[in-house]
Amino acid sequence: MFTIDHLGIAVKSLAAAKGIYQKLGLSISAEETVEAEQVRVVMVPVGESRLELLEPTSENSTIAKFIAKRGEGLHHVSLRVPDLAAAVERLKKDGVRLVSEEIKVGAGGHRYVFVHPSSAGGVLLELVEAKH
Amino acid sequence: MFTIDHLGIAVKSLAAAKGIYQKLGLSISAEETVEAEQVRVVMVPVGESRLELLEPTSENSTIAKFIAKRGEGLHHVSLRVPDLAAAVERLKKDGVRLVSEEIKVGAGGHRYVFVHPSSAGGVLLELVEAKH
Repeated sequence: MFTIDHLGIAVKSLAAAKGIYQKLGLSISAEETVEAEQVRVVMVPVGESRLELLEPTSENSTIAKFIAKRGEGLHHVSLRVPDLAAAVERLKKDGVRLVSEEIKVGAGGHRYVFVHPSSAGGVLLELVEAKH
Repeated sequence: MFTIDHLGIAVKSLAAAKGIYQKLGLSISAEETVEAEQVRVVMVPVGESRLELLEPTSENSTIAKFIAKRGEGLHHVSLRVPDLAAAVERLKKDGVRLVSEEIKVGAGGHRYVFVHPSSAGGVLLELVEAKH
């Protein structure tokens, strides 16, 4: 089963960016810091998906560099796929450009890979494994 | 009930952009032309949401201008909200910047409004009414 797992949105200020979702009546998580990524995060669950608002905590973070170059806005789209290893195998065989060739393991043990925007209509596309 | 209705993705070529989703095993719609928006569209259903790949058919289309300025990538995020009129009323009262103050009626009778990116962390946010 494919789903949109989350949208990662790069923002300068969580306080400002979360306002619209609160005003719409969505519930939002407490702010949390992810040291490894040098960001503070607020999650906004929306149906089976969620929005992740990402505010950089350092000028060196990937998100800070993205904002400096492109401004605030969508940073990545994360899709949950049924069989990540099989998907990566097929994409490699078909010449799709991945940001790294290896499946990585993130916080909480979730496995992921990024497809380069040049192979996905300008979108940085994360693929994560669906829960079993 | 809130859901992500769709993500609108501006692309130069549907043929190139849809490849990644076909390779992942997602089913995609036939190409369709929306004359009013001067785009050709491919829909990729993903769980309760869908991706809309948008290729301009004219240099004057909004999507062509977006690509010329920003390159390919996410154009808008569309959220389904339970009560659109109430949401718009509250947002206006709270000083949220809308692209147009009025709720518009699109193809198939769906009602929508756009929140300006300056009020939504750099994301052009469409609000559509949930089906009853």
